[in-house]
Amino acid sequence: MLRVAIAGASGYTGFELLRILCAHPSVRVSIITSRQQKGQRIDEFYPALKRHCDLVFEDTDPEKLAASSDLVFTALPHQASMDIIPGLLDRGVRVVDLSADYRLRDPEVYGKWYSAHKTPELLKEAVYGLPELYREKIRTARLVANPGCYPTSVILATAPVLWHRLIDPGTIIADSKSGVSGAGRGMALGVHFCEVNEGFKAYKVAEHRHTPEIEQELSVLAGRTVTVNFTPHLVPMSRGILSTVYSNLKPGVGTAEVVEAFENYYKDELFVRLSGPDYLPVSLQVRGSNYCDLGWRVDERTRRLIVISVIDNLTRGASGQAVCNMNIMLGLPEDTGLKDAPWQP
Amino acid sequence: MLRVAIAGASGYTGFELLRILCAHPSVRVSIITSRQQKGQRIDEFYPALKRHCDLVFEDTDPEKLAASSDLVFTALPHQASMDIIPGLLDRGVRVVDLSADYRLRDPEVYGKWYSAHKTPELLKEAVYGLPELYREKIRTARLVANPGCYPTSVILATAPVLWHRLIDPGTIIADSKSGVSGAGRGMALGVHFCEVNEGFKAYKVAEHRHTPEIEQELSVLAGRTVTVNFTPHLVPMSRGILSTVYSNLKPGVGTAEVVEAFENYYKDELFVRLSGPDYLPVSLQVRGSNYCDLGWRVDERTRRLIVISVIDNLTRGASGQAVCNMNIMLGLPEDTGLKDAPWQP
Amino acid sequence: MLRVAIAGASGYTGFELLRILCAHPSVRVSIITSRQQKGQRIDEFYPALKRHCDLVFEDTDPEKLAASSDLVFTALPHQASMDIIPGLLDRGVRVVDLSADYRLRDPEVYGKWYSAHKTPELLKEAVYGLPELYREKIRTARLVANPGCYPTSVILATAPVLWHRLIDPGTIIADSKSGVSGAGRGMALGVHFCEVNEGFKAYKVAEHRHTPEIEQELSVLAGRTVTVNFTPHLVPMSRGILSTVYSNLKPGVGTAEVVEAFENYYKDELFVRLSGPDYLPVSLQVRGSNYCDLGWRVDERTRRLIVISVIDNLTRGASGQAVCNMNIMLGLPEDTGLKDAPWQP
Amino acid sequence: MLRVAIAGASGYTGFELLRILCAHPSVRVSIITSRQQKGQRIDEFYPALKRHCDLVFEDTDPEKLAASSDLVFTALPHQASMDIIPGLLDRGVRVVDLSADYRLRDPEVYGKWYSAHKTPELLKEAVYGLPELYREKIRTARLVANPGCYPTSVILATAPVLWHRLIDPGTIIADSKSGVSGAGRGMALGVHFCEVNEGFKAYKVAEHRHTPEIEQELSVLAGRTVTVNFTPHLVPMSRGILSTVYSNLKPGVGTAEVVEAFENYYKDELFVRLSGPDYLPVSLQVRGSNYCDLGWRVDERTRRLIVISVIDNLTRGASGQAVCNMNIMLGLPEDTGLKDAPWQP
Repeated sequence: MLRVAIAGASGYTGFELLRILCAHPSVRVSIITSRQQKGQRIDEFYPALKRHCDLVFEDTDPEKLAASSDLVFTALPHQASMDIIPGLLDRGVRVVDLSADYRLRDPEVYGKWYSAHKTPELLKEAVYGLPELYREKIRTARLVANPGCYPTSVILATAPVLWHRLIDPGTIIADSKSGVSGAGRGMALGVHFCEVNEGFKAYKVAEHRHTPEIEQELSVLAGRTVTVNFTPHLVPMSRGILSTVYSNLKPGVGTAEVVEAFENYYKDELFVRLSGPDYLPVSLQVRGSNYCDLGWRVDERTRRLIVISVIDNLTRGASGQAVCNMNIMLGLPEDTGLKDAPWQP
Repeated sequence: MLRVAIAGASGYTGFELLRILCAHPSVRVSIITSRQQKGQRIDEFYPALKRHCDLVFEDTDPEKLAASSDLVFTALPHQASMDIIPGLLDRGVRVVDLSADYRLRDPEVYGKWYSAHKTPELLKEAVYGLPELYREKIRTARLVANPGCYPTSVILATAPVLWHRLIDPGTIIADSKSGVSGAGRGMALGVHFCEVNEGFKAYKVAEHRHTPEIEQELSVLAGRTVTVNFTPHLVPMSRGILSTVYSNLKPGVGTAEVVEAFENYYKDELFVRLSGPDYLPVSLQVRGSNYCDLGWRVDERTRRLIVISVIDNLTRGASGQAVCNMNIMLGLPEDTGLKDAPWQP
Repeated sequence: MLRVAIAGASGYTGFELLRILCAHPSVRVSIITSRQQKGQRIDEFYPALKRHCDLVFEDTDPEKLAASSDLVFTALPHQASMDIIPGLLDRGVRVVDLSADYRLRDPEVYGKWYSAHKTPELLKEAVYGLPELYREKIRTARLVANPGCYPTSVILATAPVLWHRLIDPGTIIADSKSGVSGAGRGMALGVHFCEVNEGFKAYKVAEHRHTPEIEQELSVLAGRTVTVNFTPHLVPMSRGILSTVYSNLKPGVGTAEVVEAFENYYKDELFVRLSGPDYLPVSLQVRGSNYCDLGWRVDERTRRLIVISVIDNLTRGASGQAVCNMNIMLGLPEDTGLKDAPWQP
Repeated sequence: MLRVAIAGASGYTGFELLRILCAHPSVRVSIITSRQQKGQRIDEFYPALKRHCDLVFEDTDPEKLAASSDLVFTALPHQASMDIIPGLLDRGVRVVDLSADYRLRDPEVYGKWYSAHKTPELLKEAVYGLPELYREKIRTARLVANPGCYPTSVILATAPVLWHRLIDPGTIIADSKSGVSGAGRGMALGVHFCEVNEGFKAYKVAEHRHTPEIEQELSVLAGRTVTVNFTPHLVPMSRGILSTVYSNLKPGVGTAEVVEAFENYYKDELFVRLSGPDYLPVSLQVRGSNYCDLGWRVDERTRRLIVISVIDNLTRGASGQAVCNMNIMLGLPEDTGLKDAPWQP
């Protein structure tokens, strides 16, 4: 049994990590931390975990984390992650970071969308943890930057057609819709039940921080600089992201080429499922799983491609993908601990 | 007191018409019809209406409708509307039709997206009932085709910038999200609570029948043929539509020009409210009202305009707009019976 | 036009008061106050109110309130109400208080369930503002204590059978369920969308502060001391209360006597609607209205009566009832400004 | 690997059985049946199951079921279960029946609440599948009658205090609230999203068929005939039941005795969790699990006990409990395939 730690375990992604890891056959959670919840038992904080985990929240101390674990999941706010990760790496512990701190390769881009980066030298080493794109690099990485929830849904929806050069990279528009758990467990008027219920809305239009992350990876796939419009919306539901991604098809490209691109690109992937021609995926069908389900339509009238992508924002969009990355880093089968069917309804 | 009738009053739009008309100071509902509910009292069918309306559903008979009313709202399925409207007009009764039967001016387009039109000669006469665009024609119309819910939200979001020639008409993408009441009160697995809850989805992608309606009106505004991508989605909420409309800005156009276009276009409109620069409208804020609230962002990085438009699909998207059209036809102030503030929360 | 003020207008009951009063034909809102929102325009705080109210939140100053209004609604937290109400009364202004401060006649009971009362001398004068029970006293009252939401639903469900001596007063159990707006607009983990959604719960079991209020009024009706079990629950919905009230029937009492008691007791009431034998009321059917809808079943097997009572917690449970009380105090028809049908769906 | 079959697999309980059994280490689902879905692949019917199950729905034929399985789960409507179960037992197959057909031991009671029983001779043999009460009998049973969802929540909430003679058995009132999945996947106006949302309601008051099932088991526990009031309500959520159970405490009984009774009765139970004195369970905390979580309050003012009981209606209330029964029948550890933590949020 390998020992893993969770730094910042009190939020929804922390809970989801614990839920998955408690049932994982090859690792054991040795320590969980939370500044605010320090000293409290996790199963008092989350009564759902009674009989599954009786750990007590501790301080987020790199030395202690390193001493008691072989791999650390950091589920801290951005800026806080980069404060402890160097200390962990120095002590020989591998890290899967769920914050945004090591996702952007260019420190200037990070500085522009977030704030000044404190450890830019680590950006070169960090591997973007989207297994379908970077599986080989993840295997040996010391530091994996787990992708954002929205970027996961948008990049997986676009990679095949961009890679196969079927669309015009300058025309990509990603209209994304997320459940409320993506906003975290912290309190704000925006997550008050009565404001969310019957209150669908867009937010951070043209300024959401997941934009440069999407653009970075789409640029790699396209082999040129790609700029996108990304618009997040808040849906009155707890879990799930659905992204509707629009782009202009290149001349001569039709449904057949699109189907072939998706089938080819995701041929052996365990966690991507493609819809047939008569169906489009619904957010509900992936709940609690690590799947990204994809469907598409070619609109011959406008010569545009519309791709529909659904994930569970807490599982594939955060903790499930983090465990998948851990599995790859540890040489385990990728779906270890992630084999259960989605929850319905 | 003028007498008005509602043909097809058993659905959600029928109820919403009754709710508004029962409190309307200048008209009286004289007769309601429903094939399926015939013989039942409306306040037994909808206990909410007890003490507000005690009418009994009758058969949908044009002769009887004409005899007992000065104006008829037809809230029937498409195809059924065109079966009774000619008989109503022949008997001198004016009609506000909430179906899709008289919205498209070109019978061939109707035939392609719906089925063969039975009374194409009336299409020339019918007026598209979007008051902001056709107020003068509505005033004297015998037959007003009340707009679809999605088209109302998309056309109002686009009209100012298209009219002022600020965007490229070939680049319009309307990504729309609707509450479940838009699907009507009929039963189907798709409206089962457990399938909708946590089950956000897109539907009829690239093939929804509101597409030609949107294109028809945007083409008039642009002075050229406009083709759009329109993608409807189903939100786990009862009421409300939010449309996110994307388009490419023409060179040199910035936020100032966009603001001016919206302010100018909707200068004296009672039922359009514009957001300031720091806020984007939420579906909740118009619930139960006839407002369309609009906000926008210019993305200088991509040179695209994103407009956010919210309406209540049952009020502005159907029954409220129908009453507004009736007010105009009868020479009443446009907001008669429509003055109440939206409901929160 | 009489001038009314709202002290503490930033919460959901404040908004609901404004929504109703803005459309009220006989009064004008002259001033609104809020410590936290001071200086902000209400229609920026609640964009829904744009074009309906452009007042600016002011400080809660009794002198200013008295100078600019004939009647004040105090929608402040308990304890805060009793700080300003004496000053208002002294200046000749009448008050409808939506807090709990003047509902309990016995200062010791108040002290036990809340904290020490600062103006016990006013408790004798204050009238409990449930119009069905205290209409005549409300007419001339200087200070009306607007009932709590739960007590309104429970007392109206029990009054007829208690008054007509059909049940054993020692056996009353009120199991109540409320939408989330009853918890107010303030932030707490308990109103986070993801905690409420799929998270039905009971709270403050056997210790909720509405218990003594219910007991006080049921004791008056029964002519003896009544003790009840009252259990509140939180429902994942925004508005509405449904109370299920159990009691043991006295020997010989059957459905006929129960029906007669309800019909007799509420004979001329505008805002109580009774269900027929084949139907039980649903929270949805009163939304946005001042109705209390009632239904019941006699269980001959257990000799118990079960009464189902539904209200909108923000309207009949707070602001609608407050306006009704104002109407009575001002000699206006009771339903002035409260005539609209409930909202569906 | 033992082979198990699911007769009637197209509903929510069928799906939940499949979800659990697909991940079960000791059995393999060999055949699924559905009259309506016959010929369709389950993963086309439920896209969530893609890569987890590719079985095709077959006809519900006892001979075929018996030939291809060692144990059959019958998830058919009542009346339909008793049509095939005798044929299964005759062929030596053991059965866990999720319908109500074999839960009531007295055919006259069945006849009164349902309709005439066709195989009353089997009622003596059938074991009521609540493991906490009948574990030993389940072990060797040929036919296990899986309990109803509401009875599971009510019986587990009451058994300890009834068994320990702490309450008056004549005073039990169970006020239960269920998510919508309990109504099944079939269509009806009552499960339409817009009718459920904001529409909390009671239904089948004093006449729900789970009443005799509750009374039968409580009578066994009390050693005398027990009659109860059971009132089901519909909550706008997908999963979960919370029951609030009231009863009068016997003289001298206080919190200490109640705590001891619960701790003693459920001492070694894997699937019952007791709350401490400062917390009451919420439906969310057991979602997707086989747990029944219990909490209680003694109200000294009224001398009543209030027990709060939460389960997931599809897991502990149906399919999870059915798998638990199967485990017991097959001599497997009771929690095989049921070890995962509940889902949050």
